[in-house]
Amino acid sequence: MNYDSRPIGVFDSGIGGLTIAHGMVEQMPRESIIYFGDTQHLPYGDKSAGTVKRYSLEISRFLISKNCKAIVIACNTASALAFDVVKNQFPDIKVYNVIDPVVEVVANLGLTDVGVIGTRSTIGSGIYSKKIKNAANNVNVHALATPLLVPMVEEGYHNQNISKEIIASYLSLPELGAIDELILGCTHFPLIKDEINEYYKGSVVLIDSPTIVSKKIFEGLKVNQMLSDNASPNHSFFVSDLTSSFAKSASRFFSDSISLKECRLWEKGNETCF
Amino acid sequence: MNYDSRPIGVFDSGIGGLTIAHGMVEQMPRESIIYFGDTQHLPYGDKSAGTVKRYSLEISRFLISKNCKAIVIACNTASALAFDVVKNQFPDIKVYNVIDPVVEVVANLGLTDVGVIGTRSTIGSGIYSKKIKNAANNVNVHALATPLLVPMVEEGYHNQNISKEIIASYLSLPELGAIDELILGCTHFPLIKDEINEYYKGSVVLIDSPTIVSKKIFEGLKVNQMLSDNASPNHSFFVSDLTSSFAKSASRFFSDSISLKECRLWEKGNETCF
Repeated sequence: MNYDSRPIGVFDSGIGGLTIAHGMVEQMPRESIIYFGDTQHLPYGDKSAGTVKRYSLEISRFLISKNCKAIVIACNTASALAFDVVKNQFPDIKVYNVIDPVVEVVANLGLTDVGVIGTRSTIGSGIYSKKIKNAANNVNVHALATPLLVPMVEEGYHNQNISKEIIASYLSLPELGAIDELILGCTHFPLIKDEINEYYKGSVVLIDSPTIVSKKIFEGLKVNQMLSDNASPNHSFFVSDLTSSFAKSASRFFSDSISLKECRLWEKGNETCF
Repeated sequence: MNYDSRPIGVFDSGIGGLTIAHGMVEQMPRESIIYFGDTQHLPYGDKSAGTVKRYSLEISRFLISKNCKAIVIACNTASALAFDVVKNQFPDIKVYNVIDPVVEVVANLGLTDVGVIGTRSTIGSGIYSKKIKNAANNVNVHALATPLLVPMVEEGYHNQNISKEIIASYLSLPELGAIDELILGCTHFPLIKDEINEYYKGSVVLIDSPTIVSKKIFEGLKVNQMLSDNASPNHSFFVSDLTSSFAKSASRFFSDSISLKECRLWEKGNETCF
């Protein structure tokens, strides 16, 4: 058995991908992670497709420059719009998205009515509907864009009247209809899973990505003999705009003493990391 | 009397500043406007102060390169964080913000309890409280950050259950308390003025900036003999990320045939406008 102790690169527009990074650390405690949160351009959900592709390529280039062995696009919008372009641009690197592993699970679950909630771009791309139909054409997909849930989570609203009301306003819309299971099609949504569960009172199976995606990455690295055997892995965090809310969220998932740096990838004459 | 037919530059992070630009066109129908919406970095309300300053300077530089005679910072967050730096950097250009004219009106209104709502950055800066206290120290200022109202407006939620519930959740918070008047401390909020009025059922005077700020600009230009006498002025719109939602909002305020271009000010090798 060979090992590969190089880090895994993970990126998202903000804090959402931390749910995936946290799932990875739980599943693969020997892996080092380099996280990039593109807080300067957050949220991705209402950016144009061309722009999300350009950002994703630039961040991937940065992660590769940091010697990453694999890249995880820990954002549904970027997974929907930029996975192919990143994979094609960097053929020597393993690239994972957060959509395909979830579609595989849903197709094998055997339920007939699945809801999907996500950003306007993710839902607008129709990617979940297309992929689920391809994998299991007897499944009905009910998709609903819920664009306010991302800023709600980014702004730290959990378990408050305002968050409960926004969640209920969305989930009660007729577009979702009678569903058996609901895909949380945005990496921010595991943070409000309990509130969504409370709304449904357990009558709907919630499918979120952290465990499912982490398992897929683990299997992929294992089969390629690329797992790490490092007993004391390192995690480092980069953001394109250093805000207190990111620091707070990152330390909530990891620890207070995380390494967090600002890195202005896009600015002329300001490309260095601080 | 001399005239100056050069355009006025107006900028905001997104569509909010269009409320100011629209007020300007109503008040000064001979002025040409060049609008820059920094949709690539929207929203400004949760960015760090240094970042908002850098963006504001870069956009001001762009507007000056387009021969603007004055710059209007049509965004409360940028007015709070970047007005001084823009004014100092470009001493030969008239620079207006959206806060000072409103504070002047409030100080002269003679009411005792004024509420202010705005982004986390605007409210966190304490700028309204400080300026109002300076101008009229018998006025009590009740400030509340309402960070979800900007994405709500940007995402096009008006007069729907979800927007009514979010508005009510914020306005019922004890931080606002018993107020006589409410400053809509964000240029997005005139778009939900009717809903806010409905919540208060007319018991609170709403102060929004488009008319107040436009009047101030008009007076400033007039006294300096810099008004335009152009009978057929031109308006042009630039955005840093071309999205359908901006185009929709701009045509709502102006006309369907507006000139709208994408201009990637920040990207290496991509600085040109499209």
